[in-house]
Amino acid sequence: MKKNVLIIGAGGVAQVVAHKCAQHNDLLGDIHIASRTVAKCRAIVESVREKKALKNPNGILEAHALDALDIEATKALIEKTNSRIVINVGSAFLNMSVLSACIGTGAAYIDTAIHEDPAKICETPPWYENYEWKRREECEKAGVTAILGAGFDPGVVNAYAKLAFDEYFDRVDSIDIVDINAGSHGKYFATNFDPEINFREFTGQVWSWQDSKWVSNRMFEVGKEWDLPVVGKQKAYMTGHDEVHSLSQRLGVPNVRFWMGFGDHYINVFTVLNNLGLLSEKPVRTAEGLEVVPLKVVKAVLPDPSSLAPDYTGKTCIGDLVKGVKDGKEREVFIYNVADHKQAYEEVGSQGISYTAGVPAVAAAMLVALGDWDVRKMANVEDLPAQPFLGLLNEIGLPTRIKDADGDRALEFENPALIAAS
Amino acid sequence: MKKNVLIIGAGGVAQVVAHKCAQHNDLLGDIHIASRTVAKCRAIVESVREKKALKNPNGILEAHALDALDIEATKALIEKTNSRIVINVGSAFLNMSVLSACIGTGAAYIDTAIHEDPAKICETPPWYENYEWKRREECEKAGVTAILGAGFDPGVVNAYAKLAFDEYFDRVDSIDIVDINAGSHGKYFATNFDPEINFREFTGQVWSWQDSKWVSNRMFEVGKEWDLPVVGKQKAYMTGHDEVHSLSQRLGVPNVRFWMGFGDHYINVFTVLNNLGLLSEKPVRTAEGLEVVPLKVVKAVLPDPSSLAPDYTGKTCIGDLVKGVKDGKEREVFIYNVADHKQAYEEVGSQGISYTAGVPAVAAAMLVALGDWDVRKMANVEDLPAQPFLGLLNEIGLPTRIKDADGDRALEFENPALIAAS
Repeated sequence: MKKNVLIIGAGGVAQVVAHKCAQHNDLLGDIHIASRTVAKCRAIVESVREKKALKNPNGILEAHALDALDIEATKALIEKTNSRIVINVGSAFLNMSVLSACIGTGAAYIDTAIHEDPAKICETPPWYENYEWKRREECEKAGVTAILGAGFDPGVVNAYAKLAFDEYFDRVDSIDIVDINAGSHGKYFATNFDPEINFREFTGQVWSWQDSKWVSNRMFEVGKEWDLPVVGKQKAYMTGHDEVHSLSQRLGVPNVRFWMGFGDHYINVFTVLNNLGLLSEKPVRTAEGLEVVPLKVVKAVLPDPSSLAPDYTGKTCIGDLVKGVKDGKEREVFIYNVADHKQAYEEVGSQGISYTAGVPAVAAAMLVALGDWDVRKMANVEDLPAQPFLGLLNEIGLPTRIKDADGDRALEFENPALIAAS
Repeated sequence: MKKNVLIIGAGGVAQVVAHKCAQHNDLLGDIHIASRTVAKCRAIVESVREKKALKNPNGILEAHALDALDIEATKALIEKTNSRIVINVGSAFLNMSVLSACIGTGAAYIDTAIHEDPAKICETPPWYENYEWKRREECEKAGVTAILGAGFDPGVVNAYAKLAFDEYFDRVDSIDIVDINAGSHGKYFATNFDPEINFREFTGQVWSWQDSKWVSNRMFEVGKEWDLPVVGKQKAYMTGHDEVHSLSQRLGVPNVRFWMGFGDHYINVFTVLNNLGLLSEKPVRTAEGLEVVPLKVVKAVLPDPSSLAPDYTGKTCIGDLVKGVKDGKEREVFIYNVADHKQAYEEVGSQGISYTAGVPAVAAAMLVALGDWDVRKMANVEDLPAQPFLGLLNEIGLPTRIKDADGDRALEFENPALIAAS
């Protein structure tokens, strides 16, 4: 059994991961949090202690300063803390260096989003092949478990797809992943993540996998109204997302699309800022001669995303609409989760979007600790058994439901993980 | 007869004023253009020479560097150039110092907009009483002609009101001034004047004179669709404007409102920028620690207003809807002008909005030169006879039309001015 966890990053998702690890430190052992700004790590430690979240109250919980681009420093911290699992929820620019540190030390690696090169905006598919999958053999040779994209989307939605693929269909024709945040932060406008990262996703082309080919569109070009459980009718737009690539390749499904919900107001503000050139990363010069990057000024006037959590209300609904054939008949299922912003804040001090991203990474860590997912090679979530993962998530905050011809109901799973842990 | 003109300012309106003065330099004498940036004055001189606009081709036309906040320097330039008329179309912050220089030298003073204090945004009424009218006695004592607000609005619209008041009504109940720019600059978004000045007008409260009282509203709170000659149905919004104050006081009319046309797109962009705090003049600090004024960044990404002229097409319609009683019967007249952006550019190298503001100031200067308006005291346009002014404007580019129960037709006037000048 692998024990002791090093969390890399100190943002909203890291806060969720720290709280959830603490709630299960009987299984996960010592918990270490590391980022460039140690004060942020300390604030998370403080928040965990305030909520008395440590299941084993004598368990170790420590903050560390670390530049995770420095592979040797990261290896040293892994060794010093005797961490056997690293949960990387820092910037997307860190993935490759943290993975190297894990390979160098034999620790398991878990992340929640694809690697990004800071110099490249909106890279074209095949995304995982640009960086992660090039290192598949390296992981296998070292016997290192590396679980890619174990947040909600990618992550849980990959498990939903795998479950449907294995249990509900003989042939899957399409997977449409729909991500709706029907919550309200009460501000005129705000982004849920760092505006610089958030807007990067939408300023270029977006990609989908249709008829077994990559198809490119402009952002907000293809929209569709969805009628979903709890959140009701919501408009979502086709956009590129990590799991469109991995699901199309790993499950061999001919149509994989990702739909992100946006209100008309969000799109309007985005469109105005984008058309005026205010989302540009290229500096402009003011009449007074000051060189300034417009996007950084927009970021400065927008609310700090972490400030939104206390007043965030409403729900998220994220799920997979899977279509195909079973026993010669056409079939359609929607497998999904509904999360609540206020509940998330009360439990772990973050809003629902950070909550849905962070909790699955901890579930993955628990399954690595228990051995179920300690596969000693590189894996996307759909390469792994879905039932223990979804069963564990049922218990720790992100229950799975299904809606199909037989109605809308909770999905139950046998759960070796929690039985072993209890 | 007063001769020799000093133009202060070197923007789009100053360009129009210089061209029009040149076209009438047989009457107006030497023409001098002064601003802080002498290169801009030289560019205007160049443009006048290129168009061969000087009626008397041997007439003097010169550029000067001047900080017009420096009263002594301005007096020295007036004296050195022997200018007897000063047309102030520089920044609204200069009015009081230029007026002082005129009083000090006996030159006539003409401006096109109310004085502003750079430290105060959207001052509350009574506007002219805040600065200009305090100096009424001083002008009279010195025998100095000071004509306030002699652009289009304020300016020509004041003359329309005066004409209606004198000729068409026994009692005027209301004057609604409507300013529609139905032109198109072909850009996603642009302001027709310096964005810093343009947005200042709309970020505070707006004022109107109703039932002989000041009434305050938020900008864009009160909108109304107008159906106007040539430009058709257009939405305009109540906003404060200089002439609402002067007309209400000088003509004693109980309702004076000003309506400015805005398309939905303009309002949307303005609203987004304003709500996000991007129109703020207070500096913000970026994550990297750079102090920057958001409005200056917005200005830097927007098109330079002077760059719009070559591609500007379409018309403006500005006029006064006057309601009241004549011979015991209710009456309603709309007195107006329609100007064309492309025609303006072809004639004087500026778009229609600068054209409508600049030409009337030159007409006023010509009437001062001829003596008709050389009243040796301070006057708003409605204090002066309207017929010679409107008659002259019929000849030099801004013809007056009227629409009432008898139809829509050109208004003709006896024109001592031009007869004298020819």
